[in-house]
Amino acid sequence: MSRPRVIIVGGGFGGLNTAKKLAAAGDALEIVLLDRHNYHLFQPLLYQVAMAGLSPGEIASPVRSLLSSYKNVQCLMADVQTVQLNENKMITDIGEFSYNYLVLACGAHHSYFGHEEWEPFAPGLKTLEQATEVRRRVLLAFERAESERDSAVIKSLLTFVVVGGGPTGVELAGALGEISRYALSRDFRHIDPRRTRILLIEAGPRILPSFDERLSQRATRDLEKLGVTVWTSTSVTHIDRKGVKLGNEWVEAATILWAAGVKPSPLNAKLGVPLERSGRVPVQQDLSLKGHPQVFVIGDQAYFEQNGKSLPGLAPVAMQQGQSVANNILRGLKSKPREAFKYIDKGQMATIGRRLAIVQAGKLRLTGRLAWYAWLLVHIYYLVGFHNRIFVLIQWAWSYFTFRRGAQLIVNKEWRSFPDS
Amino acid sequence: MSRPRVIIVGGGFGGLNTAKKLAAAGDALEIVLLDRHNYHLFQPLLYQVAMAGLSPGEIASPVRSLLSSYKNVQCLMADVQTVQLNENKMITDIGEFSYNYLVLACGAHHSYFGHEEWEPFAPGLKTLEQATEVRRRVLLAFERAESERDSAVIKSLLTFVVVGGGPTGVELAGALGEISRYALSRDFRHIDPRRTRILLIEAGPRILPSFDERLSQRATRDLEKLGVTVWTSTSVTHIDRKGVKLGNEWVEAATILWAAGVKPSPLNAKLGVPLERSGRVPVQQDLSLKGHPQVFVIGDQAYFEQNGKSLPGLAPVAMQQGQSVANNILRGLKSKPREAFKYIDKGQMATIGRRLAIVQAGKLRLTGRLAWYAWLLVHIYYLVGFHNRIFVLIQWAWSYFTFRRGAQLIVNKEWRSFPDS
Repeated sequence: MSRPRVIIVGGGFGGLNTAKKLAAAGDALEIVLLDRHNYHLFQPLLYQVAMAGLSPGEIASPVRSLLSSYKNVQCLMADVQTVQLNENKMITDIGEFSYNYLVLACGAHHSYFGHEEWEPFAPGLKTLEQATEVRRRVLLAFERAESERDSAVIKSLLTFVVVGGGPTGVELAGALGEISRYALSRDFRHIDPRRTRILLIEAGPRILPSFDERLSQRATRDLEKLGVTVWTSTSVTHIDRKGVKLGNEWVEAATILWAAGVKPSPLNAKLGVPLERSGRVPVQQDLSLKGHPQVFVIGDQAYFEQNGKSLPGLAPVAMQQGQSVANNILRGLKSKPREAFKYIDKGQMATIGRRLAIVQAGKLRLTGRLAWYAWLLVHIYYLVGFHNRIFVLIQWAWSYFTFRRGAQLIVNKEWRSFPDS
Repeated sequence: MSRPRVIIVGGGFGGLNTAKKLAAAGDALEIVLLDRHNYHLFQPLLYQVAMAGLSPGEIASPVRSLLSSYKNVQCLMADVQTVQLNENKMITDIGEFSYNYLVLACGAHHSYFGHEEWEPFAPGLKTLEQATEVRRRVLLAFERAESERDSAVIKSLLTFVVVGGGPTGVELAGALGEISRYALSRDFRHIDPRRTRILLIEAGPRILPSFDERLSQRATRDLEKLGVTVWTSTSVTHIDRKGVKLGNEWVEAATILWAAGVKPSPLNAKLGVPLERSGRVPVQQDLSLKGHPQVFVIGDQAYFEQNGKSLPGLAPVAMQQGQSVANNILRGLKSKPREAFKYIDKGQMATIGRRLAIVQAGKLRLTGRLAWYAWLLVHIYYLVGFHNRIFVLIQWAWSYFTFRRGAQLIVNKEWRSFPDS
């Protein structure tokens, strides 16, 4: 007798939690997890890789290893091309798969609001490849400035523009401030990294708009202490290799980082279902697709309204949705009715730099050092795998006491692959 | 009054030791260290990055940080194009440099013995980029085998050929044996990684020819215990994407690693001096170029005979040569005569796998567990930087007790750079 097969696409927070919860319930299901990469990435710390604080191996673990104790889970590296909803079938680069249940948890990409031509000049931060590329650009800018004589070029090399005042943009800008003020200040002879100009650009009236106004003001002040200049109500109108146009003002900058918009997976457009305005897939109360109760969509890929507001693209949302889906699949096996998903908001936090963060949870508001310790605890606690936790803790302790960063390598992509790959 | 300027090219073991010793002697000299990369790489552990045991950041540190306490040292990222020996001048991609003393320590590349077309199919192991590429190929081979149905393809994916029976080849083959027997054995559902076929190919009559015959026999037996098949007196006659031809025998293999020959830096050919048969630069007793006493060549780039034998391309040789050159430059400042270089051989060691190594030092011969602990101590001791030492120790302790590896990430090179870079 063959067991019902659940296919989960995506090994992020949503997919991994679905797989774990289903697998822990026993052998009644055959579980297949597909991902384009072989690892689960702890995205909340990705900016640390981009800012030379952590190595890729410290925030990512092979999905295969994370799930190796569950014998009823298979992990495969695959790229999903299309889903044939009416046939319960999926086409991937490693072959066709049929399923009894499908859980789509493919996440999101960066959106340049119709200006995709900006991407090469202003990389986003969603993948390890992008993070090492950002690290390469940031460190190379300092290296090049050190050997440059032309003061206008030096100025451009030491100008960093971060577009987008959400948590990622704030973390990037704050970390740039820290790096230039502390980590690199002793290492250069010709330039003074403390003279680095860092601009954080936000189109709306204030940064971190999902937080209380008071907290976002405090974050702005903290950023300014680290040497970051915050420009709100400012729109990017052009980006090229020389710099960025902010409204009508031209800023020469060798390094521009994009932390502004997200757009959902390109798979969405191929599902043949109506999409929400932002491109996400609207789901029912049980997170299933309308008319396809055997198909669930969760995390950044899904559009789910609660109390009249759409849920944000955060790890806790994806994790809770993964558990809810697993729960409903398991209930189905026992012929129990499904339960509606309800997101329990445990609060949000953003880090700005060394001992500076903001936390908003229920009625609790924390800033400064206390908020930073809270941020630290939560991130270490949720970091996947005992091994990574220890490493990140030590890496941070070392950086904390020495003001240095552990992963300042400029690794090129010079090595050639197989001619055709 | 301007100080005499010493330019050191290359931040490897030779260059770094020259810079440190010169810098520590005070402010009488202006010291400039040029390197194509921004980091010093601890090459003896590079195979660990290739074999997913360590992360790049754990075996490499920015040269700039390693030398930051020496205020009379400047580090610049630069690619040397030519040296004009008669004008004491050098052309690089970041401009011209004149010097009073020049120390060339550019190291070596891989040699394919006139078959450069094999390189894409059989990468060598000299740079971090190559190491992450090798890691990607090895891990991808297992991933692809897991989702493959065709048994001939699976067999090819699970066949690994390592060409070259020197220390690097032995380390790679041994680590492949370990990975497949221990680290990955629990993580796959369709394939059994323990069935992996690993061939170590050596053209000469025995592996590790620089060691005693008894030790190389022991190493062969240890490798066999890890599932490695050792073929000696076997020449590679062809390599392509499908496999490798060994004499007249064709072996289908998806992954081929090259640890056979080295050739010196391409800069040598541009110096306009006669080169030794292998392409290295013959140097005088004080490691200077004949007719150019202000120019020194050290490490893998130099050809130096002692007791009728050329010195091998090992870290201790480069380190001792760097110190000798620094010493002679400092003696020159005090108008003292130069001293001839003499290599003091403290012995050699090679590791095979978990608790398996061989050590040969003077009359001392160690094998097995004791040799492995000795290898561990020496490598941790010489690993540059307190920070890296701690990390590597913990990483190893973790791998040792859990049989897992900490850096099993397949990181692609998909992200695009600036269009023209």
